[in-house]
Amino acid sequence: MTTIAVLGGGQLGRMLGGAGIPLGVRFRFLDPVAGAPASAVGPLVVGALDDERAIAEVVDGATVVTYEWEGVPAPAARFADERVRVLPAPNALDVSQDRLREKELFGAVGVATAPFRPVDSAADLRRAAAELGYPSILKTRRGGYDGKGQVRLDDDSQLDAAWAVIGARPSILEAVVAFDRELSVLSVRGHDGDTRHWPLVENHHVDGILRTSRAPAPDLTAALQDAAEDLARRVLDHLDYVGVLAIELFCVGGALLANEMAPRVHNSGHWTIEGAVTSQFENHLRAVLGWPLGSTAARGHSVMLNVIGVMPDRAVVLAIDGAHLHDYGKTARPGRKLGHVTIVDIDPASVEARVTAARALLEPI
Amino acid sequence: MTTIAVLGGGQLGRMLGGAGIPLGVRFRFLDPVAGAPASAVGPLVVGALDDERAIAEVVDGATVVTYEWEGVPAPAARFADERVRVLPAPNALDVSQDRLREKELFGAVGVATAPFRPVDSAADLRRAAAELGYPSILKTRRGGYDGKGQVRLDDDSQLDAAWAVIGARPSILEAVVAFDRELSVLSVRGHDGDTRHWPLVENHHVDGILRTSRAPAPDLTAALQDAAEDLARRVLDHLDYVGVLAIELFCVGGALLANEMAPRVHNSGHWTIEGAVTSQFENHLRAVLGWPLGSTAARGHSVMLNVIGVMPDRAVVLAIDGAHLHDYGKTARPGRKLGHVTIVDIDPASVEARVTAARALLEPI
Repeated sequence: MTTIAVLGGGQLGRMLGGAGIPLGVRFRFLDPVAGAPASAVGPLVVGALDDERAIAEVVDGATVVTYEWEGVPAPAARFADERVRVLPAPNALDVSQDRLREKELFGAVGVATAPFRPVDSAADLRRAAAELGYPSILKTRRGGYDGKGQVRLDDDSQLDAAWAVIGARPSILEAVVAFDRELSVLSVRGHDGDTRHWPLVENHHVDGILRTSRAPAPDLTAALQDAAEDLARRVLDHLDYVGVLAIELFCVGGALLANEMAPRVHNSGHWTIEGAVTSQFENHLRAVLGWPLGSTAARGHSVMLNVIGVMPDRAVVLAIDGAHLHDYGKTARPGRKLGHVTIVDIDPASVEARVTAARALLEPI
Repeated sequence: MTTIAVLGGGQLGRMLGGAGIPLGVRFRFLDPVAGAPASAVGPLVVGALDDERAIAEVVDGATVVTYEWEGVPAPAARFADERVRVLPAPNALDVSQDRLREKELFGAVGVATAPFRPVDSAADLRRAAAELGYPSILKTRRGGYDGKGQVRLDDDSQLDAAWAVIGARPSILEAVVAFDRELSVLSVRGHDGDTRHWPLVENHHVDGILRTSRAPAPDLTAALQDAAEDLARRVLDHLDYVGVLAIELFCVGGALLANEMAPRVHNSGHWTIEGAVTSQFENHLRAVLGWPLGSTAARGHSVMLNVIGVMPDRAVVLAIDGAHLHDYGKTARPGRKLGHVTIVDIDPASVEARVTAARALLEPI
């Protein structure tokens, strides 16, 4: 019996289960919240993600351990790894949990980023702002996601307040890049180094939260895809990574700048469930289990819309031709990702017409 | 919370769960076997399918009840229906559990079948054989599936032995039809009568067990599809049916004869998981819950191969480009359906090349 222990039991765990159960894989999850989304697809151990007793319980007898949240404390992942192999290896958490280390890694492997400076004091911040200019964004090194832990700066007068707002914590200051669009590259790497990439995804965020992903990214050229695959491969090989990795990118005049990475399946890859030959969830499982990777080819044009804050009337969504609804089974709360809707078709114009209908339901004015 | 109680907890229940969990549906199953395949996707009440205490437990508080095996005793389904609505309605079980009533229903709604005669005695059998000629097949009215409860007759000398072999039970004698191929039509009908049909499927059986399904059926014409949809609609409307219905067909010189029906999701519809916009499992759930039905359009050409008796090496199967493996989590046993593999592509020749590779793994000589 192949059993995967997953640290975290949110919607990503739920979708890993949805991909793995058909493959005959059993799941166990660790999550602090009873009834978390993944509890629909396997037993849930309720406990904090750094609770060693709970970690020992969830990994006991598992074939392999993985995680569905990059906030899993790296020491907790190492504690698990002493018992059952954790993949992606915990070093990926060290990097992705620290914006400075992440940026330094990108630099070390020759992947371009926006200009940045480490900031450990108000004096650092003034110096960095003078060097990078405005607008720029102050981001805490640790703990930020979905736009949290960030302050935008437009002039010198905001510096002290910004430093206070983020709690005077170790940070980086990053130049704001006038990007043409935001993309992400989803890649998977196996035990043997075999690496595959899905077509680039174009992402639209509102208030720092992903709203819409389109895949393949409109007007995607082979050169742009190649450039993204090249940079992703450098990161994957450097980390000797196993599993799915997402790298968020800024596209600036045809060049790609790496923004951040997530060492896990990613919201901008949800379209792959219906829109690719093999989903990110299935390929993540294949990778961590040492099984052959599946094709990452797209099946037509996909648009994924996140459901944020309020769940629309299910029957109305399902009445949209070809709408695939994913309801994470979460309690509604403003700003919370409750589900997503994917529409796939060979004809991109047909997809967009239906996306307009879906958006009217998901984002009522 | 939408909860579906399912009578039966086999692979069909497991795949209903796989389709329903993303829609936010919760499942409970009733099955006599602890750890049955569906236990991966919801709690399982262990009990006989005619155990009224167990039925009451599994249906308690459910939104609707459905079944994943046409062998669910009709009285048990009626017992459940007194508590929570059962869909498809139990009258479909009455018909599908009795080959004579099934054939009579087809006749009553103007759907052609192979010539048949009811047989309740050895004398009936002799008379029927004289009328229908040879070859013909003696089939018990109740209880047969996957080729069981059937005896082929080639001449008068076999009559008494055949009658003994099937246990002198109420039966029908059916003329053997020299069919060109076996097809099936999968249809779904909603609460409101909205009815949709997937493209016809071509099926190959070995020893009475489905081995391979191709969809859309090769060389499918609009006329043949229309004829199948017309006959399916007659049956569905007559039964005021809600849910997915499968009708197995013989194609004889361009005409269609109905062989038998299954009032549930069906093995010949498993290709719809990856090969259709909406799978039979999702549309069955949408129908019984009163939600809008999804598109039944095919996404390319699909071939589904059943895994019978022995599970092949998973890694070898997954190495076939685009192979979607479904492992039901069952104990291997000769002749048992343990899983299936589906391959889908826009190019049918590419699919067939990979099917040849998969078949070599699944049916080693």
